[in-house]
Amino acid sequence: MLVAKHTHYYLYNILPESATLYFVRFFKEYHFENMEINSVKRGFASDNNAGVHPDVLKEILAVNKGHTIGYGSDIYTDQAKTLFREYLGESAEIFFVFNGTAANVLGLSGVMRPWNSVITASSSHIEQDECGAPEKFTGCKVLTVDTSNGKITIDLLEKHMHGFDFEHHSQPKVISITQASEMGTVYTVKEIQKISEFAHDYNMLLHMDGARLANASVALNLPFKTFTTDAGVDVLSFGGTKNGMMLGEAVCFLKPGLSENFKYIRKQGMQLASKMRFISAQYIAYFKNDLWKKCASHSNSMATALNDKIKNIKGLKVTQPVQSNGIFVIIPRIVAEKVMSEYFFYPWNERTSEYRLMTSWDTTEEDINGFVELLKKELKNTQ
Amino acid sequence: MLVAKHTHYYLYNILPESATLYFVRFFKEYHFENMEINSVKRGFASDNNAGVHPDVLKEILAVNKGHTIGYGSDIYTDQAKTLFREYLGESAEIFFVFNGTAANVLGLSGVMRPWNSVITASSSHIEQDECGAPEKFTGCKVLTVDTSNGKITIDLLEKHMHGFDFEHHSQPKVISITQASEMGTVYTVKEIQKISEFAHDYNMLLHMDGARLANASVALNLPFKTFTTDAGVDVLSFGGTKNGMMLGEAVCFLKPGLSENFKYIRKQGMQLASKMRFISAQYIAYFKNDLWKKCASHSNSMATALNDKIKNIKGLKVTQPVQSNGIFVIIPRIVAEKVMSEYFFYPWNERTSEYRLMTSWDTTEEDINGFVELLKKELKNTQ
Amino acid sequence: MLVAKHTHYYLYNILPESATLYFVRFFKEYHFENMEINSVKRGFASDNNAGVHPDVLKEILAVNKGHTIGYGSDIYTDQAKTLFREYLGESAEIFFVFNGTAANVLGLSGVMRPWNSVITASSSHIEQDECGAPEKFTGCKVLTVDTSNGKITIDLLEKHMHGFDFEHHSQPKVISITQASEMGTVYTVKEIQKISEFAHDYNMLLHMDGARLANASVALNLPFKTFTTDAGVDVLSFGGTKNGMMLGEAVCFLKPGLSENFKYIRKQGMQLASKMRFISAQYIAYFKNDLWKKCASHSNSMATALNDKIKNIKGLKVTQPVQSNGIFVIIPRIVAEKVMSEYFFYPWNERTSEYRLMTSWDTTEEDINGFVELLKKELKNTQ
Amino acid sequence: MLVAKHTHYYLYNILPESATLYFVRFFKEYHFENMEINSVKRGFASDNNAGVHPDVLKEILAVNKGHTIGYGSDIYTDQAKTLFREYLGESAEIFFVFNGTAANVLGLSGVMRPWNSVITASSSHIEQDECGAPEKFTGCKVLTVDTSNGKITIDLLEKHMHGFDFEHHSQPKVISITQASEMGTVYTVKEIQKISEFAHDYNMLLHMDGARLANASVALNLPFKTFTTDAGVDVLSFGGTKNGMMLGEAVCFLKPGLSENFKYIRKQGMQLASKMRFISAQYIAYFKNDLWKKCASHSNSMATALNDKIKNIKGLKVTQPVQSNGIFVIIPRIVAEKVMSEYFFYPWNERTSEYRLMTSWDTTEEDINGFVELLKKELKNTQ
Repeated sequence: MLVAKHTHYYLYNILPESATLYFVRFFKEYHFENMEINSVKRGFASDNNAGVHPDVLKEILAVNKGHTIGYGSDIYTDQAKTLFREYLGESAEIFFVFNGTAANVLGLSGVMRPWNSVITASSSHIEQDECGAPEKFTGCKVLTVDTSNGKITIDLLEKHMHGFDFEHHSQPKVISITQASEMGTVYTVKEIQKISEFAHDYNMLLHMDGARLANASVALNLPFKTFTTDAGVDVLSFGGTKNGMMLGEAVCFLKPGLSENFKYIRKQGMQLASKMRFISAQYIAYFKNDLWKKCASHSNSMATALNDKIKNIKGLKVTQPVQSNGIFVIIPRIVAEKVMSEYFFYPWNERTSEYRLMTSWDTTEEDINGFVELLKKELKNTQ
Repeated sequence: MLVAKHTHYYLYNILPESATLYFVRFFKEYHFENMEINSVKRGFASDNNAGVHPDVLKEILAVNKGHTIGYGSDIYTDQAKTLFREYLGESAEIFFVFNGTAANVLGLSGVMRPWNSVITASSSHIEQDECGAPEKFTGCKVLTVDTSNGKITIDLLEKHMHGFDFEHHSQPKVISITQASEMGTVYTVKEIQKISEFAHDYNMLLHMDGARLANASVALNLPFKTFTTDAGVDVLSFGGTKNGMMLGEAVCFLKPGLSENFKYIRKQGMQLASKMRFISAQYIAYFKNDLWKKCASHSNSMATALNDKIKNIKGLKVTQPVQSNGIFVIIPRIVAEKVMSEYFFYPWNERTSEYRLMTSWDTTEEDINGFVELLKKELKNTQ
Repeated sequence: MLVAKHTHYYLYNILPESATLYFVRFFKEYHFENMEINSVKRGFASDNNAGVHPDVLKEILAVNKGHTIGYGSDIYTDQAKTLFREYLGESAEIFFVFNGTAANVLGLSGVMRPWNSVITASSSHIEQDECGAPEKFTGCKVLTVDTSNGKITIDLLEKHMHGFDFEHHSQPKVISITQASEMGTVYTVKEIQKISEFAHDYNMLLHMDGARLANASVALNLPFKTFTTDAGVDVLSFGGTKNGMMLGEAVCFLKPGLSENFKYIRKQGMQLASKMRFISAQYIAYFKNDLWKKCASHSNSMATALNDKIKNIKGLKVTQPVQSNGIFVIIPRIVAEKVMSEYFFYPWNERTSEYRLMTSWDTTEEDINGFVELLKKELKNTQ
Repeated sequence: MLVAKHTHYYLYNILPESATLYFVRFFKEYHFENMEINSVKRGFASDNNAGVHPDVLKEILAVNKGHTIGYGSDIYTDQAKTLFREYLGESAEIFFVFNGTAANVLGLSGVMRPWNSVITASSSHIEQDECGAPEKFTGCKVLTVDTSNGKITIDLLEKHMHGFDFEHHSQPKVISITQASEMGTVYTVKEIQKISEFAHDYNMLLHMDGARLANASVALNLPFKTFTTDAGVDVLSFGGTKNGMMLGEAVCFLKPGLSENFKYIRKQGMQLASKMRFISAQYIAYFKNDLWKKCASHSNSMATALNDKIKNIKGLKVTQPVQSNGIFVIIPRIVAEKVMSEYFFYPWNERTSEYRLMTSWDTTEEDINGFVELLKKELKNTQ
């Protein structure tokens, strides 16, 4: 039995023998030690390893007074939804859920029936990272297309465009794209328009996983509406957790008539918060004073800065254009593992020794400088 | 078409014509007005209409430093789980989810297969208030028994004890009880033991919905373990939201071997929090300095105080023993509606003019006195 | 562990110790022996223990020529559907599936969404005998009402008529009745009309499980349409297997617009037959020369004859009016078990020593006479 | 809206404008006409367009006597299962279901939990032709690999071998292959062994869709057991409908311990036949006198004969090795459509003008000669 040998952890292609290593050596021990000296170090593992922006916490404190009706019938939730509509258009219907997986799965469930299929990139979150939640909850089929950079193009979709009206075949109903993509790349408005037109021509809908929508907005230097509602997106998962919030994502139906039964879907989907004002408060903070933009601008610029410092280092190879807050880079394994013990980050593909570096709203120049220095040092040591 | 006429809202038996009334008249308008003068009034609608206890918020702030691995691999989550085991026993396996519906549904899913059934009181949350989430996610059948006080007894269960090993029939697998019950009543240890023995005799398991477990503990004056693990409970939904937390409930498997696949069930159930430390922090606060006990003692004693003041008032009739933080009372409808506009609460059964009053961790004596005074005044006015 | 002791088999209340007995003693051994002497004896266990009427087999042979397009695009299926519409009305949309469970579950699935509930008698097939298939496939909640005779009345339904438009509560959408009922009783046209009006008033639909629809038609002496389409039934499971067919039931949508997506539901529900002509042929035979009526008349009259011979026997008590082809009768257990070894039938409720006797299209007067004689003899022996 | 324009029917790549054409022009009209003159013509559309072998019908008639216990507790079902075990090994556990989709979906459901994934060829039946039934019923993810000839190889599987034990990722559990494949190709024993070893190394299982298993056995000239049980297959869908039966497929668990809960899965999956003896009888006939081999040998040899006659015709191109009873051939479209009106068959890929020709147990030399002559004539006409 090769199971133990083949037990991989994360992300895409981690060779078996190294999996336990990462988790046991770097995290458990490391963190407990650091706890004692009360200084948890920042790394580049994921933007959800960062904490909550103080302005978000302040707003949570601010709404914590008196009684409000539970389950979203409160003034803060009304206020948050109003803010959303200012950004996404008057027709937008907004529903808060707890996390990104739920936003994607329930949003899709709102516009699909079990005999439908959704087409997505094989690297997408709904295909790779939701443990089959889309299939389990919607009953639908998830079809994939292979992309080099996480972005779908129309020509890739053609192979799934058949079997319409034929009861033996899952009926294609939704195309789902991720903005910014899991590879850190960003769709242009034109690219999105093309896909939405393609979808609508087939009587299909366009779904956007916007777990990092703010990073995309900053990268494009365009307001949300321009590359969502106005570009033909029908259903949007609007995320905030990866950009300074604590938790709580929004399912946004951007066209009228799509959200008819959604209140039941959310409740049956176990995603209706009783004290919802504490999610709504976070979005109030997020939109107030453009907090979302400050956070995303910062993390994007930190990624650019980091990329600038490493892209020309001999022995490294940045594999994707750095457009938002993720950098994909090939690093000699022995080097990567040494650096990791100080600044944690994840391997992306161990077969090619490719690693993922994510910056976040709280990444500092010191983080970057310290990381790059150490990286250079270890590279030198191994030559 | 009588649909509009028959459109009820809440809770059990609200006559159609009054439904819109409550929501439109009392909430929307009322709250917005109050918002302006910045003093939202407390009522007796639900313990989840209260806010978050300051100690819980403090702990959230305390863990908001540096980076931690997401999805529960952090020191705060470890710490919170350790605390749980101190209360529930060393074998307890703890998993945080977002809300009570998820705790119930996923906990059941962990020990049932789709061809099983769970037996519960017809007044239980999983039967009445989860929009079919148990059936949708587990695929299982929910069987009910009618109780007068929300508490199941063995004799009621017998009618479902048949069809074992017979493939045509959903196989009974779990008995689910609520502690404290939806009617505010509390099971004694002996009552729980009897049910768990009955369940185990049939090779079934005992599930406890503990959305108000702290209130039960205070009512019984017994530690959690005595009436859960030690009384034979197998799976427990441990709630905190209704007792001063912001959100986040715990699925607790109290016997070894029950949680084997649960990590997948939670993720596929869309209930794995990325920044989990902010749920864990709340439980750290909850257990620190016995915060859970302080909050529950307070709300229970407020219910007792309220009951003491109204139980002998002519024209009212308290219908259930007041054992935790809920009071069920028949009030003349015209009186109830007048009082409601100042201190909101929900009708429970409009046919019998029965109302539910819930106290919470932040209920004050002023709330009670003001409410009772107004109630008396309105009763007098209508005589 | 009392599991073994409590392992019941069938039907409602069989005491544990006798379960193995029935199956091992009577069937396995008995049948194999009889096989050798090539004369399998008839009993009163179930109308599906009978074989296939010769006219049905003849039609199967008749359509077995040449090639036809699979999956229902053949002339025999067209012909069968046309016959159905003659009986049920021009608007009826007909879809064949394999068995009665599928007809019920898929028919309900066609008109419900997962957050809906269906209300049915607690003795109904969808509640007791489908192993949770309705919940698993539709995701819906099944609510029950207790009846003494298997027939629902409006007053019983009231308790479930609440929570409309309230997202916490499964939305009641369908009332499901069984005609003839599992207790052998038959709804009158007026009774059905009352329920359908009640359902439609609440914007709900009426589903009829017609596994024994022909027996009901004969009992009422009315054409199918009068007590289905014309009485307000919306969705009908039309059965034939229990009345002389081999297999294959029909989901009938009796109002326009209800079957829109059903072709996908049937295929995804694994119920689309490739060589469908062999199901269609059976229905062609069933309707030709009123075969359905001949078979059902025969089995109903055999039940009447049997009832006439036993209803006044001292020591027995017939517990339900005998309106179709089932008789429910209390027999001393020791007597029943002796008779059973010659003429097999099932206990219905061992606690009350109640047994179910089903006649079928092939029951003979000899069967009845032999059975009654033996019954009388054994009764005498035990006095 | 291009929907109408893009409405494809079948099979893989039918251009939109021709879809309606096939169904309306060739089938509906054609068949009705022919019906009148009572001579339905055979074609090469699908092996399930053929009827039932007379020996199968004879056995159905033979078991139609007296009463037997329903739902499989009858002697014929025992007898059929015993025959199965002679072919597949003593450990094989056999369960009859109604059709091939159910055999695949329920068989997979028996060995998977919702958080698992199954890996299959993108051309497989479970991916293309079951309307999402696997996802809907199992809750699992279906992962695909692209193959040129319908056969999976190990190197293709590697890309899905990651994420084990990682809760974010659907856990790979089953590899599913089709024997003979949807492209008419046949796996050798060695090829199957390699895949089963690969699967078992990862603690996964091997599922085989054997809708055309008999054709594969004949093609390999090997008994079933050699390339199923003995080659490491764990779960098998054993089909008969495409090879002369009427309906009824078998889910076969080839290793002990895999079928523990399957009786509930089958019932809840709506696939438990009440008069099961009429499915069992078909398998008794199928195995008696090697009927399965006679039928499959015939249809395979008819495919060889047809291939021999067309493979060297100028203007045609056979695209797959002809190993069982399917031929894939590129034919000029104008020619194909003319021939089709006499001998119906389906386009496989309209973009490449590729067509699928299936022979069946009742294909005659006259069919082949007539078809080839017409094909040649039409080819000549278009030159």
